[in-house]
Amino acid sequence: MNHYTIKKMGPKILAKGVKIRVIPGKKMTVVFFNLDPGAVVPGHSHPHEQIGTVLKGSLELTVDNETRTMKAGDVYHIPSNSVHSGKVIDETEVYEVFCPPREDYLTMYE
Amino acid sequence: MNHYTIKKMGPKILAKGVKIRVIPGKKMTVVFFNLDPGAVVPGHSHPHEQIGTVLKGSLELTVDNETRTMKAGDVYHIPSNSVHSGKVIDETEVYEVFCPPREDYLTMYE
Repeated sequence: MNHYTIKKMGPKILAKGVKIRVIPGKKMTVVFFNLDPGAVVPGHSHPHEQIGTVLKGSLELTVDNETRTMKAGDVYHIPSNSVHSGKVIDETEVYEVFCPPREDYLTMYE
Repeated sequence: MNHYTIKKMGPKILAKGVKIRVIPGKKMTVVFFNLDPGAVVPGHSHPHEQIGTVLKGSLELTVDNETRTMKAGDVYHIPSNSVHSGKVIDETEVYEVFCPPREDYLTMYE
């Protein structure tokens, strides 16, 4: 089996205050995000379906003009092509899965 | 957006010592497992690709005859149709994602 230890994986810097560690699947991609307080993910969309779980901390998430504060233990579903953005409140860890695979993240490891 | 708070979701009993909470996606299914020490998941396989992350505790995982102890912070990838089984060591929480959706889990909520 392919196996990984998250802490031993080298992070990639996606943007200011946004670090990712990427687990490649054949049909999906799992991504661990470490987010600094104040980090901003500007509004964007993609065809990939996305399900995220806050493991630690909190962030303000906007999906298709609906804004909610998501805290540790909360899960959100972002449908394909929905416009979404985030503002990080505390030091936050998020576990996200994308389907189909995020080729743009995977190529960061090549 | 669809959103959930894991602790507020009613668990379903999948087997002795195995509780699940299921987040439905269109192309994938996210499942939170609460596993009691000593619980056993017998060898089985399915066409769904599976990526699991141990959030807490530990379990002995066997995939295609390779056995490893997976602890908090470890991630494993189980390819489609691989035979896999598990023995739970401690009180354990696992976050798993399946693609395509696990219709058998989703129908437990109907």
